[in-house]
Amino acid sequence: MRRAGVPELVGRAREGDHRAVARLISLVEDGDPRLPEVAAALAPYTGRAQVLGLTGSPGVGKSTTTNELVRALRADGRRVGVLAVDPSSPFTGGAILGDRVRMQDHATDDGVYIRSMSSRGHLGGLAAATPQAVRVLEGAGCDVVLVETVGVGQAEVEIASLADTTLVLLAPGMGDAIQAVKAGILEIADVFVVNKADRPGADATYRDIQGMLGLGERAAGDWRPQVVRAVAAKGEGIDDVLGAVDKHRAWLVESGTLRHRREARAAAEVEAIALGELRARLGSLREGTSLPDLAAEVAGGRLDPYAAARRLVDSLDRRQTG
Amino acid sequence: MRRAGVPELVGRAREGDHRAVARLISLVEDGDPRLPEVAAALAPYTGRAQVLGLTGSPGVGKSTTTNELVRALRADGRRVGVLAVDPSSPFTGGAILGDRVRMQDHATDDGVYIRSMSSRGHLGGLAAATPQAVRVLEGAGCDVVLVETVGVGQAEVEIASLADTTLVLLAPGMGDAIQAVKAGILEIADVFVVNKADRPGADATYRDIQGMLGLGERAAGDWRPQVVRAVAAKGEGIDDVLGAVDKHRAWLVESGTLRHRREARAAAEVEAIALGELRARLGSLREGTSLPDLAAEVAGGRLDPYAAARRLVDSLDRRQTG
Repeated sequence: MRRAGVPELVGRAREGDHRAVARLISLVEDGDPRLPEVAAALAPYTGRAQVLGLTGSPGVGKSTTTNELVRALRADGRRVGVLAVDPSSPFTGGAILGDRVRMQDHATDDGVYIRSMSSRGHLGGLAAATPQAVRVLEGAGCDVVLVETVGVGQAEVEIASLADTTLVLLAPGMGDAIQAVKAGILEIADVFVVNKADRPGADATYRDIQGMLGLGERAAGDWRPQVVRAVAAKGEGIDDVLGAVDKHRAWLVESGTLRHRREARAAAEVEAIALGELRARLGSLREGTSLPDLAAEVAGGRLDPYAAARRLVDSLDRRQTG
Repeated sequence: MRRAGVPELVGRAREGDHRAVARLISLVEDGDPRLPEVAAALAPYTGRAQVLGLTGSPGVGKSTTTNELVRALRADGRRVGVLAVDPSSPFTGGAILGDRVRMQDHATDDGVYIRSMSSRGHLGGLAAATPQAVRVLEGAGCDVVLVETVGVGQAEVEIASLADTTLVLLAPGMGDAIQAVKAGILEIADVFVVNKADRPGADATYRDIQGMLGLGERAAGDWRPQVVRAVAAKGEGIDDVLGAVDKHRAWLVESGTLRHRREARAAAEVEAIALGELRARLGSLREGTSLPDLAAEVAGGRLDPYAAARRLVDSLDRRQTG
């Protein structure tokens, strides 16, 4: 396994070898230099899976909901990939969320791939790494890929919004409705799930969200986000969630939005990879215009940051023409 | 005011004109084309203020703590700037947190500047906009600038870590100790504040953090993060917080870390501005290698994203040499 080349790994992943899939996602995570080769090998098999994003504050029940969604999708005969994207430390890297402790229910099911992921070595960050990992799972035959993000920061919002359909989980009594607005979640949600709907305050959360949705203006033919109640811990409401997802899916296709979303996702990915490359070039400049040299000038008040950035970019231009 | 040029605005800000300061920060927020001129005009007056970062989950009492810190610093005769950085919606922009509703206590104090900020139009994002806004406040004579970030996403962590001293607020019973580890906060905190220390569970939170700090290895001479208890709503423990900040400040200077931190901050800022410029260039490419054209190829499975990114960067190179 250790010495397997990219074509062999991709071939094994295509045949459903879980270890090959895991190895390919590790290459993505680490920003391995063979990624262009992986991407080229996978390209013909991609673009078919349904990609679902799932986000929400800590404590709303994301893992439980994911677990139940996987169960329902499997009952329907679909192959499912789960990617739990973790905003890993910018300093040490590494996902805290271990695969082993997650969703043991599906551990013995060959039709389910579960993987948590950080982007410790990936130049383009999670914006580039996530779609690449989705592509690996597509390549391995997944019909549905669930991308679960931890937290409600802007980075997580952006990752969730890369999906075909974005689910936002809320729970009663967490002030989530207001937090959702702050974090820009209201704009990205296609389906709101009020989880723990058997708890006090669930109705208020439901009404808050419906009220906020009523405030925004929508053109005729636009999607009106669905709000669904669930108690994931008891498996209740999961069919309603998937019903809302199917409804959204039908709208995506009919309205032509699916193609637009996928192109936007591809554009974000391509741009992130290109910027990663340019960033690496900026970091490798020498001859007195290195970033550390310029930063020392700026920190010392002898140069302003715009002038420094200008020198950096000019130096990049010169290197390319030279 | 509307027609004031950059030199006049900077001159007025230097004299303590609050409206001029507000206007300059708006230019930063909007990514105004005159920002290089603003940066050049401010450069001689910067690099002196103490920059404090303050972050923590929603509900831990950030605003209250900031309010009390401002009060204590003002009692000490120091001019204070507060920058509340809001992870604004990536789609509509605009900070939810209104300046008017924040910290009315200091509304009539000329020695305090309070401003919430998003980065709706700024190409370099908050990573570039925040240090620029800090520089405006320094230029206006602030001795201390407090950068408060909402949320615990990676973006917020990175912004907070741009400070000389980073304060992380926790509150009992929120599972914050674990969340802190997940979000990479443990590595960036110089001072932990266990706020609401009069509530049940405060001792457990205190012990959790001390325990986690004990797990990491530290070289001799490294800073050991301080853990302080406070009840900001009653003004209790604020002197202890500022005591820990002063202690950290002394260590920063003695160990030579202050210079390193400021250079790292400047490097992040310069790189963000340079990447913003390169990103704008990528977005302006035409002739069949435009990003939307390439994205459509990728979404259709006819091109892989690495090959697309390569074409984009090559096209940029050619345009520069041509």
